[in-house]
Order: sequence, then C-alpha cells, then structure tokens
Amino acid sequence: MNTIHTKEAIRNYLETCTTQLYDNILPFWLQNAPDTKHGGFFHQFDRNGSLNSQEKGIWVQGRFTWLLSWLSNSAGSEKERSHYLGLAETGARFILDHAIAPNGRCYYLLGRSGEPLRQRRYLFSEVFTALGLHAYGSAAGDKESVEQAKRLIEVINHYLAHPELLESKYLPGVVSLRSHSMTMIMINLFQQMRSQSSNAEVKIGLTKRIEKQIDEFLRYFFHPSEEVVLEFSDPEGEIVDTPAGREINPGHSLETAWFLMEEYRYTKNHFYLERAMQIVDWAFARGWDTRYGGFFSFLDLYDHDSPHIEAAMKYWWPHTEALYASLLAYALSGKENYADYFLQVADYLFGSFPDPEYPEWFGYLSRDGVPASGAKGNLWKGPFHIPRSLKLCLDLRPLLGL
Amino acid sequence: MNTIHTKEAIRNYLETCTTQLYDNILPFWLQNAPDTKHGGFFHQFDRNGSLNSQEKGIWVQGRFTWLLSWLSNSAGSEKERSHYLGLAETGARFILDHAIAPNGRCYYLLGRSGEPLRQRRYLFSEVFTALGLHAYGSAAGDKESVEQAKRLIEVINHYLAHPELLESKYLPGVVSLRSHSMTMIMINLFQQMRSQSSNAEVKIGLTKRIEKQIDEFLRYFFHPSEEVVLEFSDPEGEIVDTPAGREINPGHSLETAWFLMEEYRYTKNHFYLERAMQIVDWAFARGWDTRYGGFFSFLDLYDHDSPHIEAAMKYWWPHTEALYASLLAYALSGKENYADYFLQVADYLFGSFPDPEYPEWFGYLSRDGVPASGAKGNLWKGPFHIPRSLKLCLDLRPLLGL
Repeated sequence: MNTIHTKEAIRNYLETCTTQLYDNILPFWLQNAPDTKHGGFFHQFDRNGSLNSQEKGIWVQGRFTWLLSWLSNSAGSEKERSHYLGLAETGARFILDHAIAPNGRCYYLLGRSGEPLRQRRYLFSEVFTALGLHAYGSAAGDKESVEQAKRLIEVINHYLAHPELLESKYLPGVVSLRSHSMTMIMINLFQQMRSQSSNAEVKIGLTKRIEKQIDEFLRYFFHPSEEVVLEFSDPEGEIVDTPAGREINPGHSLETAWFLMEEYRYTKNHFYLERAMQIVDWAFARGWDTRYGGFFSFLDLYDHDSPHIEAAMKYWWPHTEALYASLLAYALSGKENYADYFLQVADYLFGSFPDPEYPEWFGYLSRDGVPASGAKGNLWKGPFHIPRSLKLCLDLRPLLGL
Repeated sequence: MNTIHTKEAIRNYLETCTTQLYDNILPFWLQNAPDTKHGGFFHQFDRNGSLNSQEKGIWVQGRFTWLLSWLSNSAGSEKERSHYLGLAETGARFILDHAIAPNGRCYYLLGRSGEPLRQRRYLFSEVFTALGLHAYGSAAGDKESVEQAKRLIEVINHYLAHPELLESKYLPGVVSLRSHSMTMIMINLFQQMRSQSSNAEVKIGLTKRIEKQIDEFLRYFFHPSEEVVLEFSDPEGEIVDTPAGREINPGHSLETAWFLMEEYRYTKNHFYLERAMQIVDWAFARGWDTRYGGFFSFLDLYDHDSPHIEAAMKYWWPHTEALYASLLAYALSGKENYADYFLQVADYLFGSFPDPEYPEWFGYLSRDGVPASGAKGNLWKGPFHIPRSLKLCLDLRPLLGL
C-alpha cells in the first residue's frame, strides 16, 4: 500500500475508534456500571447488558476509577470533567471503604455492598487499586486517595522483595519462577503516577523505578536469540523447559512493547524504541494466526500444545494492545510495516469483536471467530483495555499528522 | 427409527467402541504413559504424542492405576492380566511412595521422580488416589494399597465433616456452597470399592454410604421443578441466584445419572432408575447444542452468559459420559428414546473427537467443532473417561442382546 492510501486507511479506522469509543463503549459503561445505591461499579454483564452478578471485582473497581480520572483530564468541558470525576469518586470511595484488608493488602472480590468475599495470592488487585486511587486523587486533589495509593505501592514492594510472605501456588522449597506480567504492570503503574505528578523530584524517582523494571524485563523475559518474550523465567533469567517456562503471551508482549515506547517518548532513549519495535515484530511473526486471523492467546516456545485449553481462542485485549502498539510504532518510527500491522489488526478487531446486535464487544472468540461467550463484562473484561486503546490511538492523531 | 434399525446402528457403534478402545486409546496409553525409570505415569502429551511435560498429576496416577486394575479383572488371559496388573503396580507404588503428604492428605502435582510440587484445597486428589489404590490392592491382593485407600477415605470423611479445616477459596465467614461434584464422585468411589470387596458386611456398609450420598444428591442438587441438576446449593438445598448457584454442568449430570443406574442394578430399587432417566432427559433437553451439536460445558439456569469462557466449548468427557448413560438407560428401560440419545451422541462423539491424523482423541473443540487444543493428555484428560466409557458400553452387550 502506498503512503497516501495507508494514511487514508488509518484515518478511516481512527474514525471508527471515535465512533466505537464515544457511541458504544463509554455509554455502555457510564450507564450500566455505577451502583447508585452502594457506590462502586457493577461489571458482570450478559450479552444484552443485563446484570449477571452483583459481585464486584476489585480489578475493575480500580481500572474504571483510573479510566474515568484519566478521561477527566482531557474532558472537553467542565461539565464533562466533573461528570467523569464524580463517577471516579464513587469508585475511589468504594475502594477506600471496602477494598483494603486489615493486613494492608487488597481483597479480590466484594459483595455488592462491599462485604469481602475473596482475597488472592497475586498482587494485581493492589496494582489496579493503586492505579485508580492515584489517578483519582491526583485529578481531584484528594489526598486520602493518593496516600492510600502510595501505601499500596509500599505493600507491593514489600511482597515483591519478600515473595515468601505470600502464600505460594507451589509447595515450600519449590523454586518459583519470575513473572513477566508483574514487571510489565509495574512499568505502567509508575508511568501513570509520573504523568499525574507535577513534582520534578518525584518524577525523577519514578523514572528510576521504571528503568529498573525495564532492566529486569530485558534481563529475564526478552530473548533476542529466540526472538521472543517469555512469560516466566528462572531466578537467573534462564529459559525453563516446562509448559510455564515456554509460555508465550503475544498480548502481554505487545502491552510491554507500548509501555517501552511510552518510555522512549518520555526519556528520548532510543534504545527503548528499538527494543519495542523488535517485540512488536516478534509478536506479529509468532502470535498471529495466519489461518483464521487474530492473535493466539498462548503459544509454546517449542511448539508444544499449550496447557491452556483457551490457547487458540482470540481474546479481545491482545488485539486492543496490538492496535495501539502498532500505531505508536508507526507514529514514532515512520516505518510502513507498522502501519501495515495496524491495518491488519484493525481489520480483524473491528470486523470480529463489536457485537452487531447489542452494545459493547465480545471478549472471547473461538479460533475461527465464533463468539465463545456473550459476556460483556466479567472479572477480567471491563471498562479498561478497549477504551484505553481507542483513546490512545486517537491521541496519536497530531503525531501522525491526521 | 424402527427397533431393528436401531439395534443395528447400536451394534455398529459398539464395533467402533471396540476399535477405538483396543486399537487406539489403550495402545496409546500403555505405550506412552509408563515411566520405566521412576515409576508412575507420564500423561502430558502433545497432539503427536510427544511429551509436553514430565510433571505427574496425581489425578491421572490414581485414575490410570484404577483403569489398569479394573481391566485386569476382565482380562482375556493370565498374560494380559499380569501385564495390566504389573503396570498398575508401578502406579500404586509411585502413589504410595510419593503422593501422600505428611498430614495424610495427597499432593496434586509431583515432579517426574516424585518430588512434591503442589497441593490443592480440594479433595479430588485423595478420591482418585483412593480409587486407584483400592482397585489395585483388591486385584493384586496388596494389603498396603487397600489400607492406604481406607486411610484416605477416613481423611476425606474427616474434611467433609469439617470443611473449615480446609483452606477456603472464600474468606472466613463467607457462606460456602455445597458442591455436586464431591457428592457425585463419592458415589462412584464407594460403588467401586463395593464391587472389589467380597465381604458381605463391607458391602452392606458401603451400600448405606452410597444411599446417604444419593439422598444428599437428591436433596441438594436435583431440582424437579426446574428440571435440572445444579452444581452448587446453599447449605439448605436452596437455589442461590449467583453465577455459581445457577451453574449447570451437563457432563456431571450425566455422570451422576449413570452412577444412579448402577445403583439400581445393584439394589433393584426402581426409584434410582427413574431419577436417572429424568436426569438424562434433562441433560439432553438443556445441554445439547441444537445449532452445532454436542454438549455445552456449562450453562446458566436462567440463561445468563456463563462466567466460564470455555462454556460453549465441547469437552470430550461429557460426551463419553452421555454415551454410556444413554446406552445404559436404554438397556435398563428398553425405551427407544434412550437409544436415540445414544445414537445422537455417538454420531457427534465419533465424528468429532478422534484425531484423524494422530492417535487418541482431541479433548477440546470450539463450539462449532474446530479443535481448540491438540493436547492428548493434561492434568485432567488422561486414560480414564474414554476407555472407561467404551469398555462399559461394550460390557452392556449381553444386556442388550447384542
């Protein structure tokens, strides 16, 4: 495709981003999610938008609080800004009132009115809660939220330094593997906090913490000789020849890739951009299903059959991450192959995931594209990946000259 | 279909059962599973039969030990019998040496040479280990295996009576739901033990324990007003309006149905047969995918979208359970509709699951029948459901006059 046609095709898909974001995704969640009685957000919705469960997952409470606060910063009017911030406040309030356990960690699942139901061994609830509280506290000038976010980050750091304090999935003495997802998500959390801070010293400190996370990512999970990002490594960064050790998650690779590109934009360190472009290349080379289109959810480094029975499914979120990662790589590098990647994933994404009959998108397709679940929201799918990606793509228009 | 044609069609499928069992399934596992160096069984195999992981799940160790011991009882020759029993012995030995934790419970996952890797909060590892050890000990006259099986059953009973001693998925104070799968599997375990015992008093005791489990099943999970078996209930047997409380698992329903029919065969209590036939009717009415064929994995009582993203997948095991449940219902009742069910599920099963290129069967298809995973064995799929069902169907030939 020549450059003029490429730009035109991108422009068309950016119009689709606008329509999907403002006429489909955001209205669905702004209307259905807020619980006006108990605060916080419903998020377990059937295909037709009816409520499947009143239970409230903490990931979604933190993520939607973050999204609303983030949107408030670029709101077109004071009215819109206070609408977003008002909803974010109910999320932050619900988290502050109900999500923090006596031991300083977060719960994973609450009942409708905030009664704690589950806590899990992983630290993702703490990460998404901190993400939401820091964004809301910064946007609204709410010190309590910012302070609680900082306490949560200390809790996360404490457990990352002492993983033996968390109940392990494996028995004591079994060597535990390092996990890419935790490294990845901490980069994003620190980047978000930095963008919300106006204190130069704080920004420098966060930039150092990000640099440390990226160093860890490159040492443990980035494998140029195999041209792959792996999800787990042994404590020294060696590849472990087990199903977990061989696991490839193209969506996570692409997510880390765009976090690295954002770091390039902030630091102007070209090294980050180069690594990110490599990762995007690898993810499209290995992760794309050349038969039916779309990204596989999981692959095995040596082509064994993945132990995940959903490995061949097409999840929505790797595609939203790929959409932004490829467009950002194109915007930053000017290289046409990233525009081609963007158009490839946009064709599949907008052709497969939006529900033609009801609002919002399908989250899970079978390998050949048949919807495997109608659910519009569950404990993992909520108002996060789709609106974040669409908005980020739209924000690239000035850089793209579109 | 008239009766003569029906019988002929069943006869043809029983020939397929023979071929699949003796020329495909059993050779695959007899050849690939035994670990001649460390004992026990490998079971994590790729589509082409290559080993995906050397780790050994305890469920499979117990289940294959049971299958081999069971097959030894009907072996056609002393040579065949000792071949089966010799392999069963390596399973039993591996379990006795490595699977029992110091607290009397079982591990869930071991390394190749038996080093413990994981223990889980559920009691299924104990059930399948007891199943295998009791079958092997009875068939081979090995007292140590029988005694260990009995100790495991005491452990299971202890924890079932004191569920608060097991780490809960939910936080303390959250009302935990009763689970159909545990009730179901205890019926099977006690039935197997009874069939292996020659002591009349022991048989009477086990029959009473089975009766108690069936009473619990009927009180908590069997819902005539809704024409459904549910997977969970509140402590009083009321339906809980949450995703878990509304969960329908057609495969589990059909498995319990044939356990009830086996109890009818033993006790001549017609009540069990009638209930079982109802359950088979309900499972085919609700669970069958009229669009693409096959049984859904999970459904929601009120037609909400299941929270399981694999709900629309077609698993192999509900179909093997349906195969035997429908044929047994036909053999015991003589009612043609169960023969029709058998042919319906046999058409789908033999047309969709056997791998046309490599040995053994696919375990997981997308809703429209595309293989979702090539794995021939994992922590759940092993030498159990398929050979058990095929052999049980073949064992019905005298009763069917075929």
